[in-house]
Amino acid sequence: MNKIYVIGVGLIGGSLALDIKAQNPNAIIYGIDANLEHLNEAKTLKVIDEIAKLEDVIHADLVILAIPVDATVKLLPHLLDLVSDTTLVMDVGSTKEDICLAVKDHAKRRNFLATHPIAGTEHSGPNAAIHDLFKNKTNIICEVEDTAFNLQEKAIKLFGAIGMRMRYMKPKAHDRHIAYVSHLSHISSFMLGKTVIEKEKNERDIFDMAGSGFESTVRLAKSSPEMWTPIFKQNKSNVIETLEDYIKNLTQFKSFIEQQDFKAVYDDMKNTNHIKDILNGIQ
Amino acid sequence: MNKIYVIGVGLIGGSLALDIKAQNPNAIIYGIDANLEHLNEAKTLKVIDEIAKLEDVIHADLVILAIPVDATVKLLPHLLDLVSDTTLVMDVGSTKEDICLAVKDHAKRRNFLATHPIAGTEHSGPNAAIHDLFKNKTNIICEVEDTAFNLQEKAIKLFGAIGMRMRYMKPKAHDRHIAYVSHLSHISSFMLGKTVIEKEKNERDIFDMAGSGFESTVRLAKSSPEMWTPIFKQNKSNVIETLEDYIKNLTQFKSFIEQQDFKAVYDDMKNTNHIKDILNGIQ
Repeated sequence: MNKIYVIGVGLIGGSLALDIKAQNPNAIIYGIDANLEHLNEAKTLKVIDEIAKLEDVIHADLVILAIPVDATVKLLPHLLDLVSDTTLVMDVGSTKEDICLAVKDHAKRRNFLATHPIAGTEHSGPNAAIHDLFKNKTNIICEVEDTAFNLQEKAIKLFGAIGMRMRYMKPKAHDRHIAYVSHLSHISSFMLGKTVIEKEKNERDIFDMAGSGFESTVRLAKSSPEMWTPIFKQNKSNVIETLEDYIKNLTQFKSFIEQQDFKAVYDDMKNTNHIKDILNGIQ
Repeated sequence: MNKIYVIGVGLIGGSLALDIKAQNPNAIIYGIDANLEHLNEAKTLKVIDEIAKLEDVIHADLVILAIPVDATVKLLPHLLDLVSDTTLVMDVGSTKEDICLAVKDHAKRRNFLATHPIAGTEHSGPNAAIHDLFKNKTNIICEVEDTAFNLQEKAIKLFGAIGMRMRYMKPKAHDRHIAYVSHLSHISSFMLGKTVIEKEKNERDIFDMAGSGFESTVRLAKSSPEMWTPIFKQNKSNVIETLEDYIKNLTQFKSFIEQQDFKAVYDDMKNTNHIKDILNGIQ
């Protein structure tokens, strides 16, 4: 796989490009992006070797689609039309059900692998691309059995080489669980940031009082709205369910405080403390 | 100030002990704690030099009170009774109004300084004590004018030596603002942890899907319920107000998703993105 086309040269696409190039110095990484400034930046930063056009994917051994999930749903069928019979096309989106559905009956379905490499930072764009972002992280692969054997194998080898562990899952289950362990975190962080900014808008120096705890909980509120709005749209029903559960727990905690039931306040926190052990598996 | 008594040899008390000793090798650090295991551990770890009893504070140049805020309110008046006329007594609690009120009319009020060094980690106990925890962090000092001049000066010198910047504030304002920039973060994190654990209790391996974003937002859910329950109790009305604001924003965000108003979802996130610039001041 020497001719690699990355569509969307941002945090995820760019970081994958860097790692693949490091593993495979003979590969030529072609970048495709609707944002010309990002493309030029990616080339200057050596995240990609060459700038390409969508039609060029006919020459690709591998195409990585790393654009917002609504754009993926629209572009993916057309992209499969364009590629050769031997090309592997992968998406890396944070939702899987709508994306898999979009190419369910496509003649080249077996050229596509649905993946979700779970890694990232709160930054975006080509200069957010970093080496080793995926090392020791989990990659969720969906509907693997619908991908051609030799292309499955190539993809697994590539992700293994950059340090990822593979997990196989159905798209529906992926979207349901990822709403809890990722999408909800982003909303809780955005709304925390919003709440504090609203309250303190006339007293900006108050943020001088904020410690590392606040910084850690609002870190994700720096994330890209361009990327996250379509994720919440596609995963709407699961995201609403997680928000209902979260709001219910917050409301109950508030009631405990109002009713001066500080044993319940204590117990709620004590019972959640074992998140320590659960998180030990996360690198 | 060579005879220093630290009451509560945990994360904050222990870390202060380490930094003070490093700055002032001639100081002898005496530890006092209701938990004998912690006391022995603190001595073994060289967080303290000697184990002491409460009555010994008569010999103290400095007493640092680093215990849960409800215990501080109870112990502080008695402690001031015990110390000499030249002793400086400081608390380091995350609430200030009730603590200042508890000694408002005490005959030795001028021996006391109310402080809140804003630093910490999610860990607790003597082995959570670390060097340089307070470096480049903010210390909120309340009612400084009620402390004797020479003791004010000693305290400021000590905190300056361990790298803290001082900010002066009234107790009421401290408690109102800290509810937003610290207490709410802890609750949002605990409830996020609770929501996800409840949902995934039968599928523990699902946490394998969690990335660094989830880890960052639930980090504070590892914090000590023993320390945090009394904080929420003492800062009840402010904490309830922050929770109401937070729940209102979450509910509105959920409504935007339900109503498919993804422009509003986008705008909410975009408008919160400038938390980046605000946080640039936080180390």
